[in-house]
Amino acid sequence: MNIAVLGAGAMGSLFSCYLSKRNTVYLIGHNPEKQKMLDEKGILLREKDGLETLYHPHAVSACSGLPEMDLVILFVRVMDTIEALEANRALIGQNTCLLTLQNGAGHEKRLLQYVDADHALIGSTRHGSCILEPGKVFHSGTGSTSVGFVSGRTDSSAVADELTACGFPCTVSASIRKQIWEKLFINTSSSSLTAVLQVAQGFILEDPYAHSLMLKMAHEAVEVANAEGIAQFDEQAVIDSIHEVISNGIGGYTSIYTHVKTGQKSEVDYISGYVVERAKAHGIAVPCHEMVVTLIHALESRNARGI
Amino acid sequence: MNIAVLGAGAMGSLFSCYLSKRNTVYLIGHNPEKQKMLDEKGILLREKDGLETLYHPHAVSACSGLPEMDLVILFVRVMDTIEALEANRALIGQNTCLLTLQNGAGHEKRLLQYVDADHALIGSTRHGSCILEPGKVFHSGTGSTSVGFVSGRTDSSAVADELTACGFPCTVSASIRKQIWEKLFINTSSSSLTAVLQVAQGFILEDPYAHSLMLKMAHEAVEVANAEGIAQFDEQAVIDSIHEVISNGIGGYTSIYTHVKTGQKSEVDYISGYVVERAKAHGIAVPCHEMVVTLIHALESRNARGI
Repeated sequence: MNIAVLGAGAMGSLFSCYLSKRNTVYLIGHNPEKQKMLDEKGILLREKDGLETLYHPHAVSACSGLPEMDLVILFVRVMDTIEALEANRALIGQNTCLLTLQNGAGHEKRLLQYVDADHALIGSTRHGSCILEPGKVFHSGTGSTSVGFVSGRTDSSAVADELTACGFPCTVSASIRKQIWEKLFINTSSSSLTAVLQVAQGFILEDPYAHSLMLKMAHEAVEVANAEGIAQFDEQAVIDSIHEVISNGIGGYTSIYTHVKTGQKSEVDYISGYVVERAKAHGIAVPCHEMVVTLIHALESRNARGI
Repeated sequence: MNIAVLGAGAMGSLFSCYLSKRNTVYLIGHNPEKQKMLDEKGILLREKDGLETLYHPHAVSACSGLPEMDLVILFVRVMDTIEALEANRALIGQNTCLLTLQNGAGHEKRLLQYVDADHALIGSTRHGSCILEPGKVFHSGTGSTSVGFVSGRTDSSAVADELTACGFPCTVSASIRKQIWEKLFINTSSSSLTAVLQVAQGFILEDPYAHSLMLKMAHEAVEVANAEGIAQFDEQAVIDSIHEVISNGIGGYTSIYTHVKTGQKSEVDYISGYVVERAKAHGIAVPCHEMVVTLIHALESRNARGI
């Protein structure tokens, strides 16, 4: 397959490496110098067991001269999605599948501006990674990957097969939106609070005040999700699942924590902000969500100003 | 007069100094060594114009051997009020006036455990001070002081007269609870947010996200205040007054900001927490207030743990 990965961050790098085992992979980033370096030296991927492997996906900063792709995977930050798709529109043809494994929810409306619903795939993955230094990536977490066509098509997908063959066990799910909400529950209820409070994940379990806020956030999110009619979520099951995820990463820091800490624009508008958006559509009050989104924007701005 | 000032912080020190010009003043603090030092060396009070004056109120750490007082003034942190009154119960007789100029609201119920409503005075002052170093206090702000009897008595008060004579121009107000709410609006809507966001006061005006949260907090607080039936507050007038106070202290940090920053227990339960308490009594929803109180407790705990 010809595969383009848009976004040369930690996750884009990880997927480019594994997929390059069996495919021609183009990792497209916005920084020409960095891409040139990656292209020349390759990407060293460090596994949890300490094993390091050097991979050589093509690293480029522009799509000129590249063929139409069989698959384009979005790993840019959500707010950069449209800009990235516009810049790489030439890679997307009638048979190109466009897949997002980005954080947050509501991405389908952006994909459908570029491909039809039978070629638009949304999904989520439990794999995790972080950049150790330029050209060196740590593969910090593994697990299942789920994708689903926006059209609801459930026939076996060449995309899922190829991900599986390359080391990302992947299923095509008919209930992908349900799974995306399940991930969203964790991010909107717990990760967003780690950004507001600037704490490691474990604090949400350890501190009774933080924990009570998480419960309120989960309550609001479940109410909205159930109004969406995708599934009937049980609030206690959602809370149990949040507890489980936090317990597995007590000392870990979320990406939204890091973005806020470093004064970058976080993806909160596509996480808790998406819940607010859908709540409005259903006429549901979500005051905690509204406040968390606004606080995070205020903190992004405070930190960007170096206050 | 024999006057005891409970709490040897910045405000207790300021009031002890001025009141000692014409009265026998006992400044009672909890730290024996510090009190001994203050008693021996006095308190150097620095005015805004640079003038420094050394005052010698009696500084003690226990009330044994002291006479019954004409006036006891509370300047301990609100959460320490009952403990301080218990320890100094011997100073309070049938003719003792008990005055609080503490931050927050709802203090009358604590005073009434020790004196009757004709001897319980609540109030607020625009004077401000901070401790520069042990024994050296900066008198950072001046302005009017208002006090009012919990009974509603409005005859001229010896307490107000004495405060005025010593340099704290003071009136007895029949609408003291209205004035306390006016101060509370500022503290609950703006100061509490400076603690959550860990910013100087000016940020609440400068940042559109922080400003929008302040407006929501003010809206909730005005709704509760009006349900209290003390006065009919106009929301826009309240917002204008908050803007004015912030504008006069753009670069300044609130005490609640400092308490949270240093991991101390803040007085939020007696500020925004009081609004939540009164909202519950009236069946009014105040989700932003609830969240701010909980966030501040989580941040106090985070900072106390040095996270």
